[in-house]
Amino acid sequence: MRDLLREVLEANRRIPAAGLATLTWGNVSGVDRGAGVYVIKPSGVPYHELDVESLVTVEIETGRVVGGSLRPSVDSETHRVLYQAFPSIGGITHTHSTSAVAFAQARRDIPVLGTTHADTFDGPIRCTRDLTPAECERDYERNTGVAILDTLDGECDAVPAVLAASHGPFTWGATAMASLETAIVCEAVAEIALRTLSLDPSAAPPAHLIRRHHTRKHGPDAYYGNLSERG
Amino acid sequence: MRDLLREVLEANRRIPAAGLATLTWGNVSGVDRGAGVYVIKPSGVPYHELDVESLVTVEIETGRVVGGSLRPSVDSETHRVLYQAFPSIGGITHTHSTSAVAFAQARRDIPVLGTTHADTFDGPIRCTRDLTPAECERDYERNTGVAILDTLDGECDAVPAVLAASHGPFTWGATAMASLETAIVCEAVAEIALRTLSLDPSAAPPAHLIRRHHTRKHGPDAYYGNLSERG
Amino acid sequence: MRDLLREVLEANRRIPAAGLATLTWGNVSGVDRGAGVYVIKPSGVPYHELDVESLVTVEIETGRVVGGSLRPSVDSETHRVLYQAFPSIGGITHTHSTSAVAFAQARRDIPVLGTTHADTFDGPIRCTRDLTPAECERDYERNTGVAILDTLDGECDAVPAVLAASHGPFTWGATAMASLETAIVCEAVAEIALRTLSLDPSAAPPAHLIRRHHTRKHGPDAYYGNLSERG
Amino acid sequence: MRDLLREVLEANRRIPAAGLATLTWGNVSGVDRGAGVYVIKPSGVPYHELDVESLVTVEIETGRVVGGSLRPSVDSETHRVLYQAFPSIGGITHTHSTSAVAFAQARRDIPVLGTTHADTFDGPIRCTRDLTPAECERDYERNTGVAILDTLDGECDAVPAVLAASHGPFTWGATAMASLETAIVCEAVAEIALRTLSLDPSAAPPAHLIRRHHTRKHGPDAYYGNLSERG
Repeated sequence: MRDLLREVLEANRRIPAAGLATLTWGNVSGVDRGAGVYVIKPSGVPYHELDVESLVTVEIETGRVVGGSLRPSVDSETHRVLYQAFPSIGGITHTHSTSAVAFAQARRDIPVLGTTHADTFDGPIRCTRDLTPAECERDYERNTGVAILDTLDGECDAVPAVLAASHGPFTWGATAMASLETAIVCEAVAEIALRTLSLDPSAAPPAHLIRRHHTRKHGPDAYYGNLSERG
Repeated sequence: MRDLLREVLEANRRIPAAGLATLTWGNVSGVDRGAGVYVIKPSGVPYHELDVESLVTVEIETGRVVGGSLRPSVDSETHRVLYQAFPSIGGITHTHSTSAVAFAQARRDIPVLGTTHADTFDGPIRCTRDLTPAECERDYERNTGVAILDTLDGECDAVPAVLAASHGPFTWGATAMASLETAIVCEAVAEIALRTLSLDPSAAPPAHLIRRHHTRKHGPDAYYGNLSERG
Repeated sequence: MRDLLREVLEANRRIPAAGLATLTWGNVSGVDRGAGVYVIKPSGVPYHELDVESLVTVEIETGRVVGGSLRPSVDSETHRVLYQAFPSIGGITHTHSTSAVAFAQARRDIPVLGTTHADTFDGPIRCTRDLTPAECERDYERNTGVAILDTLDGECDAVPAVLAASHGPFTWGATAMASLETAIVCEAVAEIALRTLSLDPSAAPPAHLIRRHHTRKHGPDAYYGNLSERG
Repeated sequence: MRDLLREVLEANRRIPAAGLATLTWGNVSGVDRGAGVYVIKPSGVPYHELDVESLVTVEIETGRVVGGSLRPSVDSETHRVLYQAFPSIGGITHTHSTSAVAFAQARRDIPVLGTTHADTFDGPIRCTRDLTPAECERDYERNTGVAILDTLDGECDAVPAVLAASHGPFTWGATAMASLETAIVCEAVAEIALRTLSLDPSAAPPAHLIRRHHTRKHGPDAYYGNLSERG
């Protein structure tokens, strides 16, 4: 548990360092499946004031705060919906990174435009549908998670990222730190996509190249990497 | 008063650190309503040469310098108009940040394109009308403030920022530091807006989503944050 | 002379720090009118390897190297043409800064789009004509200076900057450091202009506003600043 | 050999410092022609964890790993094809830098738009053809090299860079460090080109200016620089 707190703390601190958000925006959480809880950034606390004591521990099943004296991030319920739906998710990052938010605000998927995208994501990073007025009125953050589930349609591993429409990116992974790395990749890929589309609005790579790049890093025939956690 | 000087000094120093201006551009002021004065950056002094002694104290009612040996920022009279018109304003920041100035130069409002904007601003960041030749000829800085008042139309709390046409952003808040944070958000929101509009010139979010995001941070039903000054 | 060497060294070192050039690109020089010489960066030496000994001293009248053991910047002759033509110039900076070079490559003037530009430049930053094949063939760097003189038409004070067509910006001032500051402003103004034009390709500010902003910083009625060297 | 390892280590470490890649993306290699080997970054290791021991030594002729206990970069076979084809190449850098990748994803050459480009590259930076499905299926990285050879058509010195279509830039030089410097220039030139094309999609400089700039730095009549390794 102490290790989880430290990892979540470190991952949150890297959000501003990686240029993914300013002030108090964004949040990272990490899960302890055995204990049935996740640890998340408190609401409205600047990154440089965070410490292990300020983090909030929340029960996955009930949403009850079971550790820490502050309130969790307002986006906590969105994280919880994802943890409940997908047992394989160990960490979640939400940011307001510039280019990914631009796609979210244009309510466009981030398309697969090259191998940089395909190395991490096996398909476009989808943008959710709009929430209905009723979904915004009540349990808004939970319903943000519901709209994400609708978009993912039961499959969270091929593309570990989504854009909440008119809002911004959520990314995930086996750990809090892995979800943060995916948030970094998501922004890099979005920025390159913006520049690519400014050169050629209909750019599209050959499908066989994209397939090759994804499978060299992921799946049974992967041959990328040296570290066990990178498969 | 010593605390105010320190805060205004620190807020001014953060302008270049936050990438909001180069050289001597931009200025932050903070008010002491009890004493009827505000403290502001001196004119033309580089940020790294600023110290508490170089700051200038100005009487709100008269514009008379009552503290410090240097001349106040040339924009001081614009600050003063705002302090006189709105008793709730405790600090003001003016910058030449790249994307906000681009909107000011295009004489376009920064539209509400998503939740990042709505979290801070309850509506577009308005761009003022042009000043008339007579307004530029005489009391130019005071008239810049007058044009801002015309644009705000008596309401400064919903959207604590404005673009002076062909010039740049002014932001405000309860304190000098709060006005600086709003300047940071204003630039972030402008940059995301530029990228969003390059993807979709007619992008527009659902009104009910925008409303929900603003009210979760502001007003009687706000539930964002943990620190008292963040409500 | 020692002071001039130190200032030129410091100004050159700030080029990469200010993000105006990478590797060995760009150069700053400063003049000693009494001695009839200028001091300039050596050719092809990385900024972090520069020291006072590596700087090169050149006679304004003849172009002869009279100090230092290295060859001067290849652009030295362009600097010399400007020093010969304009006795008021005390320092010159040449960079390859991203947005200013983009205007140079598009062979477009950087237009006056707002007060940020007008605070420093009393008019557009002009782009030179193309050099002829003969001008490129022989004495190319001197002819670059000649094309700049053609563009300036005898007047270097109103707008202390120019874009060499398809090449990049040259800026100048009373000292080497002042010319560097103008190079920083030139790039900032170019970047804001690019963003402004992407929002509105025909953006143009009211002429009376531009006039007011320039005259509050420059000329007999200036009221900006506190430091003597800033007038 | 020890010197080569140190240089390759240092060049790899500079990739993230120069903003050319995030996480584990990108790789630099350097050759020892006498020993018939090249040294390259291991696959999937973050830059800050690299040390001399983690580097991998590969036989040019066979592709066999002859030093180091980790697997080489997945792109190692692309490097090897280039080393085999061009004896003058001493180092190779591959990055995912933002603007160069945008051109690669738009499958467009980076055109010669000004002297900044011509100072280093004697012509456009070409983008390769697409790989065929069969080339992606088997020996993909080797075939990426084959497509580069097709594009270069036997000539690697005039333009020491290429864009692998839908993928990203490869650059080379006499040493590992030289190839890294060319990668930095490639990205700078690509970013300026993007901005130039946004101002003028048909921008093109006079051919005689471009020729002059290239020959002042390269070839028998070069007169740029002071350091022997810069000619």
